[in-house]
Amino acid sequence: MLFSLRIEVSLPADVPQQQKDDLRRRENDRAIELMKKGKIRRIWRVVGEVSNISLWDADTLEELHANVGSLPLYPYMKVKVTPLIEHPVTAAWKGQNGDLPPF
Amino acid sequence: MLFSLRIEVSLPADVPQQQKDDLRRRENDRAIELMKKGKIRRIWRVVGEVSNISLWDADTLEELHANVGSLPLYPYMKVKVTPLIEHPVTAAWKGQNGDLPPF
Amino acid sequence: MLFSLRIEVSLPADVPQQQKDDLRRRENDRAIELMKKGKIRRIWRVVGEVSNISLWDADTLEELHANVGSLPLYPYMKVKVTPLIEHPVTAAWKGQNGDLPPF
Amino acid sequence: MLFSLRIEVSLPADVPQQQKDDLRRRENDRAIELMKKGKIRRIWRVVGEVSNISLWDADTLEELHANVGSLPLYPYMKVKVTPLIEHPVTAAWKGQNGDLPPF
Amino acid sequence: MLFSLRIEVSLPADVPQQQKDDLRRRENDRAIELMKKGKIRRIWRVVGEVSNISLWDADTLEELHANVGSLPLYPYMKVKVTPLIEHPVTAAWKGQNGDLPPF
Amino acid sequence: MLFSLRIEVSLPADVPQQQKDDLRRRENDRAIELMKKGKIRRIWRVVGEVSNISLWDADTLEELHANVGSLPLYPYMKVKVTPLIEHPVTAAWKGQNGDLPPF
Amino acid sequence: MLFSLRIEVSLPADVPQQQKDDLRRRENDRAIELMKKGKIRRIWRVVGEVSNISLWDADTLEELHANVGSLPLYPYMKVKVTPLIEHPVTAAWKGQNGDLPPF
Amino acid sequence: MLFSLRIEVSLPADVPQQQKDDLRRRENDRAIELMKKGKIRRIWRVVGEVSNISLWDADTLEELHANVGSLPLYPYMKVKVTPLIEHPVTAAWKGQNGDLPPF
Amino acid sequence: MLFSLRIEVSLPADVPQQQKDDLRRRENDRAIELMKKGKIRRIWRVVGEVSNISLWDADTLEELHANVGSLPLYPYMKVKVTPLIEHPVTAAWKGQNGDLPPF
Amino acid sequence: MLFSLRIEVSLPADVPQQQKDDLRRRENDRAIELMKKGKIRRIWRVVGEVSNISLWDADTLEELHANVGSLPLYPYMKVKVTPLIEHPVTAAWKGQNGDLPPF
Repeated sequence: MLFSLRIEVSLPADVPQQQKDDLRRRENDRAIELMKKGKIRRIWRVVGEVSNISLWDADTLEELHANVGSLPLYPYMKVKVTPLIEHPVTAAWKGQNGDLPPF
Repeated sequence: MLFSLRIEVSLPADVPQQQKDDLRRRENDRAIELMKKGKIRRIWRVVGEVSNISLWDADTLEELHANVGSLPLYPYMKVKVTPLIEHPVTAAWKGQNGDLPPF
Repeated sequence: MLFSLRIEVSLPADVPQQQKDDLRRRENDRAIELMKKGKIRRIWRVVGEVSNISLWDADTLEELHANVGSLPLYPYMKVKVTPLIEHPVTAAWKGQNGDLPPF
Repeated sequence: MLFSLRIEVSLPADVPQQQKDDLRRRENDRAIELMKKGKIRRIWRVVGEVSNISLWDADTLEELHANVGSLPLYPYMKVKVTPLIEHPVTAAWKGQNGDLPPF
Repeated sequence: MLFSLRIEVSLPADVPQQQKDDLRRRENDRAIELMKKGKIRRIWRVVGEVSNISLWDADTLEELHANVGSLPLYPYMKVKVTPLIEHPVTAAWKGQNGDLPPF
Repeated sequence: MLFSLRIEVSLPADVPQQQKDDLRRRENDRAIELMKKGKIRRIWRVVGEVSNISLWDADTLEELHANVGSLPLYPYMKVKVTPLIEHPVTAAWKGQNGDLPPF
Repeated sequence: MLFSLRIEVSLPADVPQQQKDDLRRRENDRAIELMKKGKIRRIWRVVGEVSNISLWDADTLEELHANVGSLPLYPYMKVKVTPLIEHPVTAAWKGQNGDLPPF
Repeated sequence: MLFSLRIEVSLPADVPQQQKDDLRRRENDRAIELMKKGKIRRIWRVVGEVSNISLWDADTLEELHANVGSLPLYPYMKVKVTPLIEHPVTAAWKGQNGDLPPF
Repeated sequence: MLFSLRIEVSLPADVPQQQKDDLRRRENDRAIELMKKGKIRRIWRVVGEVSNISLWDADTLEELHANVGSLPLYPYMKVKVTPLIEHPVTAAWKGQNGDLPPF
Repeated sequence: MLFSLRIEVSLPADVPQQQKDDLRRRENDRAIELMKKGKIRRIWRVVGEVSNISLWDADTLEELHANVGSLPLYPYMKVKVTPLIEHPVTAAWKGQNGDLPPF
């Protein structure tokens, strides 16, 4: 199953710099682990904002919730989850052309 | 350049069924052309809604605008464009693991 | 998988009464079919509104989308889908007391 | 009487960890008590969020207010109450099939 | 049980004047019936708007829904229901002074 | 003149408990004074929320403002004032039945 | 008593031009009558919009409602009423300087 | 040029009382200076709120910005500026009756 | 004086194509006239939307309102006007470097 | 590529004055550097607000993000990015009159 997540991160200004650096380093490490497991499929920065848009794969809703909640910055995130399915245009493409081009 | 588009389509109820069918068939054809040209990279249906989320590639902002406007259902669409760039986590992944896994 | 749906129905005032009656009768029949299949688990009317809150079961996101879209009033609905998982309090209850009481 | 509640919990970041743990333990205990009394009928976690959706039974509005207010995390909650009644589809089901299947 | 209702009425401009007059006359008659039964306790016009605020009594949620839905203008209404209980200040008043002054 | 007020109170979490108790006791005393003077006519708690809905009488707008501002919790309130007048249904009732039933 | 009103007018595009002209002429005439009576004290156009901001005097809330409702364009208006009182700065001015300068 | 300003003031609760008193005294003094110069033409308190509505005169946009920014409470204000021009009804009045009555 | 305008145009779907073409041609002609007079300084299309952002010069607020209202599509526009002044950074630039570079 | 940015700055009240002055001085310096490089093309203050509207040039989305993020006040900003392209009216002007007049 595929989900689009829009995540806004707001670290309070009074979190000490060292703690911020530590949080961001651990966030990066955990995100890469989730990419390695194929759970985060893609992630992009929204231009000009401290937000990101990401695509997540999950076998179950429980797995998705656990994976999102395992991010060290989770307590500072506002998360919006949108469940996705194949669009008819994609199905039509595959019928005509086989697999989607790599992306 | 990569852009995320959230598109809501609202065809007025009083458009005759034949015109609706014709619009949807031409919409499908044009979307597949844009996928063939690598301009629409991915498109998904939002579960339970007549909305979709898509990822568009464009060399210029003018090209993106022309391509979106070339969709036959464009006059019935509400479009939200979000410009995207690589997220630091993706850069870190590539440094460690090379290309992203196919998706 | 469990999903909470909030659905607002707005039939345009100029739909002829006979068509409205027909739509509502077919809506009722289809909803009962979905209840028999265990896909709509519960559905309630929101007091004072032409809205309802329902709980849907689905094996896949595709199945959920197809079932919601099969409702005859779907073209007149505004649908909001919220994916749900077990709450820790429910898990704690089950550990102490076994199955939830019938509801 | 049945009510759907959507509750968002926001514990300030500067509440000491021990106090948080204590609040959450007491919250869990009180919620289980309310389930035992048949007052909280069901409760689910919203996927990806620190929110939940729950169904409450109450003989009176006063009872509902007192029970919600008895939760230790109540001072940190934003609560939205939606009163519910039986949907005509449920009535039609019962006329044809008797009791709803267990859920 | 007491409920505060905020109701906005929007009769489409193209409803013929005679039908509008008929609807308003029947609305008035039904509202007075509901006042006689003690179901609408009070109703006020919001200054400058085609909206009203009213206080409804109901033995059950089903009764409230049926009574609101029995208003001839119901198909043209946007309704917001707020369940109310006694405020501690009222309780304190009654302890000191007995019944509330007539209103 | 009659006004409906919707008031949300948000006492910051870090106000010491003794000060909160003192504020609430003085708030209660002042509200009862205003009821004795016939200025607060009715006040109800909104079920599940730290909000209330109240009906205020005032000879002038200045009087209303002064009375609301005299509440000890005023600095922590978000207030929405809605001016009300008699609804045509009430006028029709009175023409037919004389005074409204006590409430 | 003084009230600030923000009024947005939206005449449907399909009202015949002659009817529009007639409505606007009668609107103008009625507004001038209300100015003569000292009920509309001032009225301004919001730059770039089909909206206006006006200051209304009224002895009672009923009078204000009747006067606003007597405008021929009232069925096409969205009205927001804000009750106003003297600001402490104005009171201080008057104490020092007497009447406000003409405006 | 005339502008309508809606200003909401929110002094943080933890500003010491003496500093608040000082700010309010200096705010009052500066506002009276601006009235003397004919820059603030009128100012009213919104009933029940810590907001005000005021009418400002300015020869240039720069002057308006400087005058608003010179208020000691400016760092604690949320300001909404609406540029105004003469309404056709006012022009028609003047054509018929000369100057507007004093206000 | 400089103003930023955000304009959304929504031509109803049932305006005949010939009338739409005529409106757009006259809109284009009038906009070019306003550019020649130096009143519209710049205008851009918002990517993916039927909206535009423009910068307008005006000697008076009345002139701005008349010029915006002279656009043939004005009855179909939603307009938001934002008055602008020089930013301190621009002033600092000019002090150091003279005129801004052409744009 | 051209982008319109609307930026609201909210420096917390408890940032020490010296740090504020330092931030603003460095913000000014960085903004002038970006103007020198032709990256910030124009910037204006919104009248009456601590907001600004600016026009940015960028060869890539990455460059835009890096330049906005290089502003010392970036952690205190709320940024909204709108991608712009040439409007047909501008194209028509250029066809008739050549370059746009300096601005």
